[in-house]
Amino acid sequence: MTKDLVGIKEMSKGDIQQVLQTASSFKDVLKRDIKKVPALRGKTVVNLFFEPSTRTKTSFELAEKRLSTDVLNFSVPMSSVVKGESLYDTVKTIEAYGVDFIVIRHASSGAPHFIARNVSASVINAGDGINEHPTQALLDAFTIIEKRGTLDGLKIAIVGDIFHSRVAKSNIYLLSKFNTSIRLIGPPTLIPDVGDYDVEVFFDMDKGLKDIDVVMMLRIQTERQGRGFFPSTREYSRYWGMDMKRLNLAGKNTLVMHPGPMNRGTEISSDVADSSQSVVLDQVTNGIAIRMAVMYLLAENGKN
Amino acid sequence: MTKDLVGIKEMSKGDIQQVLQTASSFKDVLKRDIKKVPALRGKTVVNLFFEPSTRTKTSFELAEKRLSTDVLNFSVPMSSVVKGESLYDTVKTIEAYGVDFIVIRHASSGAPHFIARNVSASVINAGDGINEHPTQALLDAFTIIEKRGTLDGLKIAIVGDIFHSRVAKSNIYLLSKFNTSIRLIGPPTLIPDVGDYDVEVFFDMDKGLKDIDVVMMLRIQTERQGRGFFPSTREYSRYWGMDMKRLNLAGKNTLVMHPGPMNRGTEISSDVADSSQSVVLDQVTNGIAIRMAVMYLLAENGKN
Amino acid sequence: MTKDLVGIKEMSKGDIQQVLQTASSFKDVLKRDIKKVPALRGKTVVNLFFEPSTRTKTSFELAEKRLSTDVLNFSVPMSSVVKGESLYDTVKTIEAYGVDFIVIRHASSGAPHFIARNVSASVINAGDGINEHPTQALLDAFTIIEKRGTLDGLKIAIVGDIFHSRVAKSNIYLLSKFNTSIRLIGPPTLIPDVGDYDVEVFFDMDKGLKDIDVVMMLRIQTERQGRGFFPSTREYSRYWGMDMKRLNLAGKNTLVMHPGPMNRGTEISSDVADSSQSVVLDQVTNGIAIRMAVMYLLAENGKN
Repeated sequence: MTKDLVGIKEMSKGDIQQVLQTASSFKDVLKRDIKKVPALRGKTVVNLFFEPSTRTKTSFELAEKRLSTDVLNFSVPMSSVVKGESLYDTVKTIEAYGVDFIVIRHASSGAPHFIARNVSASVINAGDGINEHPTQALLDAFTIIEKRGTLDGLKIAIVGDIFHSRVAKSNIYLLSKFNTSIRLIGPPTLIPDVGDYDVEVFFDMDKGLKDIDVVMMLRIQTERQGRGFFPSTREYSRYWGMDMKRLNLAGKNTLVMHPGPMNRGTEISSDVADSSQSVVLDQVTNGIAIRMAVMYLLAENGKN
Repeated sequence: MTKDLVGIKEMSKGDIQQVLQTASSFKDVLKRDIKKVPALRGKTVVNLFFEPSTRTKTSFELAEKRLSTDVLNFSVPMSSVVKGESLYDTVKTIEAYGVDFIVIRHASSGAPHFIARNVSASVINAGDGINEHPTQALLDAFTIIEKRGTLDGLKIAIVGDIFHSRVAKSNIYLLSKFNTSIRLIGPPTLIPDVGDYDVEVFFDMDKGLKDIDVVMMLRIQTERQGRGFFPSTREYSRYWGMDMKRLNLAGKNTLVMHPGPMNRGTEISSDVADSSQSVVLDQVTNGIAIRMAVMYLLAENGKN
Repeated sequence: MTKDLVGIKEMSKGDIQQVLQTASSFKDVLKRDIKKVPALRGKTVVNLFFEPSTRTKTSFELAEKRLSTDVLNFSVPMSSVVKGESLYDTVKTIEAYGVDFIVIRHASSGAPHFIARNVSASVINAGDGINEHPTQALLDAFTIIEKRGTLDGLKIAIVGDIFHSRVAKSNIYLLSKFNTSIRLIGPPTLIPDVGDYDVEVFFDMDKGLKDIDVVMMLRIQTERQGRGFFPSTREYSRYWGMDMKRLNLAGKNTLVMHPGPMNRGTEISSDVADSSQSVVLDQVTNGIAIRMAVMYLLAENGKN
């Protein structure tokens, strides 16, 4: 790995495998009564969240504390950004503080890459615009391998608003590096052209789900309703929502994933969310192990 | 004690005595130059405050840090709740993070009980709706015993908006388990029917205060003014506010308590708040010892 | 030093020199891979920010964590202040928590002095109204000495809205204790009468900058525009903004300082901000060393 984790696109297959392997050791730590290791004691992390987030921010913060780092949280309302400072100055200032890691979420695609080029600290992308959310794709891969033993040979469907989803993008980039078949399912207005990536597109969910090993549901942004992307959450639910009937079409062993927070009754029914095929809570637990692994490897790398 | 502290109602007299005794040891720690002990090192606490709070949240956070836990703060504006996630999913997610304690304040009575049933972490109620605020009652009892040596035989008055006060409820439940006489003083609109609990009700404060050992003043929510509960803060102050004249009616050794923050000039006059009979600041200090004791005992219990 | 750091005005020249010397040792710590020392382990700090702040708050928080203290952050929206509690009660409550340090920023000049008189904890002023911002002046002095070896004999200009600037006030008080020449440059409406302090006032920036060793630019509060203090940010920039042409008037070795966040294009041009004569990022780094030194010395002092 290089200094930073800005996107799956920038990672080699070997980098990804190294993260997954290291996360596996940290997952063992998370099963202990004391879930803390002194690996990064004395290191400082700034969590720089320019968009609201609970899950990802909490997951990073837990990973940071379990690695024994010192953690500083910046959120938008408290930030100099309200005083009109440029992102460049904010970031150079943070660098001058001498921090070791910057975890950033930003509404602009490419913000983490810009920062990574301008600081000596390690930058970790926690979601940038509609571009990438690399640690989510890593934890999704980890969860699939944990349940199925491998990614190779699997048929994986991603369902929903793929156009606006950085989770979907990172997953497409990651799965494409392995021997998987990728299907994108959703309304035509929400499926982007993914260029060179080898995917099959389905506008009919029932067809798309056939013989699928893993289905990744995406969160629908209900606030996008009425802007022409889809008719209504009710219609959306009917055509692209996951319920038990559809899950049975996919298969009795098909895994159901969701990055959370779920809109129960919209993109996923409650019985699916709570079914034994749902691995949503495994994803949450594994997210901590993945983030610990990423920080640990970036720090190790910095030593060389 | 069981896994959780959801209410005084759910505690036995023995449980309460154990907390008070343990808090006494922690109070000694708080008198040292270094107020920190390694008792819960490596444990993780999430403070989940769905209502604004400074005092209670700070007191818990200090207790947590002095026990050497790792602390995560969730407050509403940053939370997934704004994205429409259910309390159930929020809580299952937190459980999947592998935290050891959830400290929760919520506007809905019963929210901590619901959570406690759904997670393996220890849940501590930091105030739920108009139901209970158990750690406040425990610190109040601790403070009284510290000053008077015992609860037994004492006459204790609770004054103000008892109907909306979770502090009052928890105190009634606690004091009822000991050999005390409880008086409730306030306007008829703000005194609820407390069912089986043995209390005397006074609408006339001067009468109610006679020969009282301890008077617990409640905070009046000035925002309730004009909704029919009481005529105005001015009237309220005149009929149910504590001033030196009234305190003299009660007695020269009567203790005055208040959970804070005080509305000086409304429910309590400044000279009473600052008098030698006021134990308001002792309550603040003791709150930390009580919360350390509760967390310590829940963790000890979890080992068995 | 006494118990508190409320202002430069209250410090002797010896106090200041002691802080600068101690900061020099801490600066060495900040160059290490592990930037943390156990000097104040077990001590608790409350950061009490009644005004929004990122830079100063972050700098203090880093200093606190690198000294191994436990840190609690209070910010206004979460505070009891919204419930109408007096500053006095807030502060007595914090004292009852048994904290060791209170770092306070407040819109009212004199708030830290009021608090310092009412608590046994050490109070550090992080900016009070238009009065003082003492740690900023200390870090500015440290940065100048780091670059020039001494303050003595230097000609130092402060440019901009001196009237509203607590940074300017603290710098005037500090520099006056050393053998420096102080020039104030700005529009007549924004230069206050500084009474007994020996300063030269210039309304013409080009004249004021001649043969200057150090120029301290102040942030212009663009929200003050249109209230009669200056015609417009455009005019302001033309008459009192620093650009390369003006910097050349001052000298090839003249240092340019700014407390941040900078309004690039208003009080300072981008090429000046990024030039080799700018020490803005050194100021940021040194701020941490200064704040560590202040806390360390106040704690040492408390032992005697």
